[in-house]
Amino acid sequence: MELIEKLNWRYAAKRMNGKKIPAEKLDHILEAIRLSASSAGLQPYKVLVISDAATKEKLKAVAYNQPQITEASEVLVFAAWDKVNEQHIDDYMAYIASERGVSLESLDAFKANFGKILSRPAEEQFAWTSRQTYIALGTGLIAAAVEEIDATPMEGFDNAAVDELLGLQQKGLKSVSILTLGYRDDEQDWLAPLKKVRRTKAELFEMI
Amino acid sequence: MELIEKLNWRYAAKRMNGKKIPAEKLDHILEAIRLSASSAGLQPYKVLVISDAATKEKLKAVAYNQPQITEASEVLVFAAWDKVNEQHIDDYMAYIASERGVSLESLDAFKANFGKILSRPAEEQFAWTSRQTYIALGTGLIAAAVEEIDATPMEGFDNAAVDELLGLQQKGLKSVSILTLGYRDDEQDWLAPLKKVRRTKAELFEMI
Repeated sequence: MELIEKLNWRYAAKRMNGKKIPAEKLDHILEAIRLSASSAGLQPYKVLVISDAATKEKLKAVAYNQPQITEASEVLVFAAWDKVNEQHIDDYMAYIASERGVSLESLDAFKANFGKILSRPAEEQFAWTSRQTYIALGTGLIAAAVEEIDATPMEGFDNAAVDELLGLQQKGLKSVSILTLGYRDDEQDWLAPLKKVRRTKAELFEMI
Repeated sequence: MELIEKLNWRYAAKRMNGKKIPAEKLDHILEAIRLSASSAGLQPYKVLVISDAATKEKLKAVAYNQPQITEASEVLVFAAWDKVNEQHIDDYMAYIASERGVSLESLDAFKANFGKILSRPAEEQFAWTSRQTYIALGTGLIAAAVEEIDATPMEGFDNAAVDELLGLQQKGLKSVSILTLGYRDDEQDWLAPLKKVRRTKAELFEMI
């Protein structure tokens, strides 16, 4: 089965070779991310797509100098809303109403679902918005594998420094994860030849 | 591009028709989940795969009686480790050493990466383990779509009651999300005919 083969092929490349990704493949990966599921479809995040070499250099400096950042073709930064407010929900309702050609009033019951998250402290709201970005991150990883593009998910960076570098605070965002996209450098990457390690089916799953 | 078509086809089915999924398709979906990326490859979670009708009934009762739970063929519960301890890391190192045929000592530098998470309070450790389950959830969603199996991701349930029902606390786990797998019931599902709403590329992405 092809998807399983692609998932076995992928790994978190620690070195990339600097080659650019064709625009069409990047478009497919971004479109898959755009179509990602999220709780109630809110998509409470943005994805910064960095192709600019100087920005990648600065990003690397606040991410423990991990070389795949500057060796990647594109670097995606997943940044979640730092809080969820009524304006966010109102805007979302207006967008759904417009996309589906329905009245705002017809969305009242759906809108009420957001009452619970709106009542939480900003810290818990961010915990929730940041979780949603991991679905998009996972989608990006798989879409890249399907396109035979290498992708490295990263949590190891100085979040506050990345937020500062990309002006995220002013946009109501906080960085959560990074995904580098490019091509593995088999010769330089110590991880490339190693066996993929995953828990056995018996250990990971409990059948009831 | 086939993957994008599948992602456009999928939606969060609110009603399913009770039909069973072929064993081979379920195997593919579980294998994709097993191959999911996670931070440092730790996979700090378990996935409960519920086929038993009585357990699904009880689960529905603590999940706002959402009908897709009992109408699904299988219900997956993603449950994250409630904390991360040294034994978890030691076991993981022993497993890697055995899988790759290397010495434990050769993994010392890799093992040191876990010092940071081990030093955190249990609450923050769970925030981190639970985030990892969302990559697996996203993987399961896509793998299901590729198999043309419907899948509904759910956060709306009584977590403590689900933990109690499935005996998760004794296993050092806490429920995070549910994924129902089955077949949409087009006639009963109000959501089935509605247009998928996703933010535009211009709104979701910032190109740098």
